Amino acid sequence: MKVLSIDPGIRTTGFSVIEAFGPNVRLEAYGTIKPQIKDSTAKRLYHIFKEINRIASRFLPQALAIEDTFYSKNAKSAMILGQARGSILIAAAHNEIPIFEYAPKKVKMSVCGNGTASKQQVSYMVCKILRLKTPPKSLDISDAMAVGLCYINQRKYDD
Amino acid sequence: MKVLSIDPGIRTTGFSVIEAFGPNVRLEAYGTIKPQIKDSTAKRLYHIFKEINRIASRFLPQALAIEDTFYSKNAKSAMILGQARGSILIAAAHNEIPIFEYAPKKVKMSVCGNGTASKQQVSYMVCKILRLKTPPKSLDISDAMAVGLCYINQRKYDD
Repeated sequence: MKVLSIDPGIRTTGFSVIEAFGPNVRLEAYGTIKPQIKDSTAKRLYHIFKEINRIASRFLPQALAIEDTFYSKNAKSAMILGQARGSILIAAAHNEIPIFEYAPKKVKMSVCGNGTASKQQVSYMVCKILRLKTPPKSLDISDAMAVGLCYINQRKYDD
Repeated sequence: MKVLSIDPGIRTTGFSVIEAFGPNVRLEAYGTIKPQIKDSTAKRLYHIFKEINRIASRFLPQALAIEDTFYSKNAKSAMILGQARGSILIAAAHNEIPIFEYAPKKVKMSVCGNGTASKQQVSYMVCKILRLKTPPKSLDISDAMAVGLCYINQRKYDD
């Protein structure tokens, strides 16, 4: 079972591809998508859409996991995040990949056993679980990994 | 000069295609995009994206006009609207159509001469300008037409 997990953002979208086999997990790929800041919003969203398409075609995940954040500082930042999220959902639908959404608290609980864990704690635990020698450079990546691990844990309970 | 103008929404997206030649305007097409309510958010967004692609391929507009609303009741509805907006921006980028965004007040001012006009006033004035015998069935359509007329008016000043 292979999951593509995403932490969306118009500046930086973190992603990871994690494969689970039995009780084991293996990190297959990870990185960030960073549209050019000088580009228009539409071009930046389209860049995210195309990159997710490219990753999906290359790694052929069976699921896409993403946080179902509906919290934001204000309506403007919520709308901007919504646009970035939309790019990812459309790319998933385009590639016919089923989407699994989890509340941020559920993701933290799943990885850290604590629904209010900090991003640093999440990064630390993600490294432990995936046996990484050094933490990912960006918290957007460790957040994406956490969502993927949440999906895998959840599937274990569901099976 | 032909403009595709959009009033985005996850339930109903209004659109119109208006052609301007000299001082005249001609309404070439209009309608609504209504994704199936039973479908997932991703499928609904993808439906909007595909429909905008279809309309763009059929009518070959030189511009896409949309309101730059950054106001909403709350973060959740802002994020949902953001996702629908994202679908349209990605479709525009995919078809290499330049995007023009206008504040809601500017659109109302352009069509009604009053930045706080009601949707009904907008619908009435749009009918007058486009010489429609009956108003469009949906205020999402008249709102879309108003954005298209705003673009055309704006271009007149810019030329």
